Amino acid sequence: MDRRAAAWTDGPRIAELGEFGLIARIRKRTAGATPTPTVSRTVSSLRLGPGDDAALLSVPRGWDLVLTCDIQLEGHHFLRRSMSPREVGARAATVNLSDVAAMGGVPAAALVSLGLPLDLPVRAVDELCDGLMEVLARHGATLAGGNITAAGSLIVDVTLIGQVEEGKALRRSGARIGDTVFVTGWPGRAAAALATLDADEALWARLAADLGVPEAASLRERFRLHHAAPEARVAVGRFLVENQAASAAIDVSDGLGGDSRHLAEESGVRIVLEETFLPVDPDLAALAALLEVDPLRWVVGASDDYEMLFAAPRDRADLVLAMGTVLGAPVTPIGRVTEGAPGAMLQRRDGTRIELEAGWDHLSPDRGA
Amino acid sequence: MDRRAAAWTDGPRIAELGEFGLIARIRKRTAGATPTPTVSRTVSSLRLGPGDDAALLSVPRGWDLVLTCDIQLEGHHFLRRSMSPREVGARAATVNLSDVAAMGGVPAAALVSLGLPLDLPVRAVDELCDGLMEVLARHGATLAGGNITAAGSLIVDVTLIGQVEEGKALRRSGARIGDTVFVTGWPGRAAAALATLDADEALWARLAADLGVPEAASLRERFRLHHAAPEARVAVGRFLVENQAASAAIDVSDGLGGDSRHLAEESGVRIVLEETFLPVDPDLAALAALLEVDPLRWVVGASDDYEMLFAAPRDRADLVLAMGTVLGAPVTPIGRVTEGAPGAMLQRRDGTRIELEAGWDHLSPDRGA
Repeated sequence: MDRRAAAWTDGPRIAELGEFGLIARIRKRTAGATPTPTVSRTVSSLRLGPGDDAALLSVPRGWDLVLTCDIQLEGHHFLRRSMSPREVGARAATVNLSDVAAMGGVPAAALVSLGLPLDLPVRAVDELCDGLMEVLARHGATLAGGNITAAGSLIVDVTLIGQVEEGKALRRSGARIGDTVFVTGWPGRAAAALATLDADEALWARLAADLGVPEAASLRERFRLHHAAPEARVAVGRFLVENQAASAAIDVSDGLGGDSRHLAEESGVRIVLEETFLPVDPDLAALAALLEVDPLRWVVGASDDYEMLFAAPRDRADLVLAMGTVLGAPVTPIGRVTEGAPGAMLQRRDGTRIELEAGWDHLSPDRGA
Repeated sequence: MDRRAAAWTDGPRIAELGEFGLIARIRKRTAGATPTPTVSRTVSSLRLGPGDDAALLSVPRGWDLVLTCDIQLEGHHFLRRSMSPREVGARAATVNLSDVAAMGGVPAAALVSLGLPLDLPVRAVDELCDGLMEVLARHGATLAGGNITAAGSLIVDVTLIGQVEEGKALRRSGARIGDTVFVTGWPGRAAAALATLDADEALWARLAADLGVPEAASLRERFRLHHAAPEARVAVGRFLVENQAASAAIDVSDGLGGDSRHLAEESGVRIVLEETFLPVDPDLAALAALLEVDPLRWVVGASDDYEMLFAAPRDRADLVLAMGTVLGAPVTPIGRVTEGAPGAMLQRRDGTRIELEAGWDHLSPDRGA
């Protein structure tokens, strides 16, 4: 935790630089980042970057723009004691990349509004920008512009602009009866990470023993990273679009249950998930056993994961499973699209069914992480 | 002030609606707004609006995108006692429209991040959205999407996407030696409004008497509106682009002096403004006389105005002056572009010259409005 803490506390403060000094510093620091796209191609180009009243972007013919924004607030979405400035910047990019991924888009350009406490170390802003740029560049996107202002607590609001072939975007509304429902990765990991954020050393020692892990500290860090350093499934979205392999998609940032319901309602269909099929991270299962809680609480309930949930026609199921191998992205069939009242339910192992409700409510009292 | 205050305090709170209830309410309330462009044409179209992971926008061939964002924070950019929720929403749109205007762009679509205190009345969010939508629609733009989160104080961050004919954008860097420098409207009004935000009744009575205005209260409101309800010069930007009448442009949100310097530095030229030519609002001049301050402090110094400063070749000067009449936008020639070290100076009536420095610093301690 020490290195993380130092970046938030040590060295000169931004108040010493002033607005224009800080802008010049950020422009210089972010100018060097070169996008190295993991997706097939990036065809939008920035004609004019930061420094004028607005940025200019050229968009080639045949593509629609994909537009999304997501704000991250200190005390609501992150705490300084649980994330480094670099992680805050990287995560602010990732949550937006995840929305573009869920539309099947190619990330192109970002605009960033920063609200900065005047006593924030310059180093924290440097590292935040580094984390943001590193993640943007990895997915082929550039920084188009932004603005900074003084604020009582740290605010990072990112708008991400991507592009997708005309008419090919993965909407929430396209799921059809008979489709198979898939999810990437291991939903619930972020919820488990948040549940153990302030766990004492004894818990980590016991969990490490249960899992046969030699170092409790590294186990603790592994959990923390599930929340602090998620990955956006940009390559998955692109694969699905380029291969016309999905009928509908959503990212599960509100939780697998709630977002299954959102997808079903927008498509006017019923989604039935099978508990037997749900991917459960072994670490998460061990933690649930230790705490004597139902692991479904994390896997299906509100969790701040950035995995993708999507529906695919049956004749694309093999292709989707092959995609998992090709991209190194775990992808699991977890249920099906059926007739019935729009909504989502979970078929439990014991034969009971539970209706899945909306998950994570961003207006509920602060979670403290 | 009473009606303004009531919208911030009365009625049910947003916490009673929850996130998804509030999102549904905002979607319903903002769906009805129909853009009625004042600019010549709006050719981008929203293929998919709020409700999915991201929005989809189609952009016609031959146009570049114009991208900008600007965040407005309660306690830093506005106070509840000085602005209504409707004005906060309208102003958040205007400050971004002003950036698109300064590039000569046609506004197209906005994304909005809202940070909302849980005890905020639902009515305040309703009115804020109404103000935002009304201003967007007036300039031909639609709401493409957004996100909401709980926050300690009110946050409104708008990203605005516009479009401009390829290669026709008004950059800061195009001013050429021999150009005439123009400004729209009356810079300094916002600074004068902020200077009198907490002035007592006696000052308003004296100023009303000096100006021969019968009602001190309406005078006070006139001043307040200079800061609370600025207008973006979108039509001016479009006229300049469509008539190829300007070589460079900037909005003066950092103050006329500082932004003259920005324009000059980006263009690598020297700008000389003439005090004699500067447009000075008579109300502002009377206030300065009463307070025994130099009115230039407001006109040239830091002021939160959204007027446009631009350079035009000499053979376009008559066209620019005609534009003022056609658009009903006051436009004044205030100086010229000359050789010399990049920067800006003011030639005073007494023959002295002062170097113009950067103005309004968003990282300086809060101004309280």
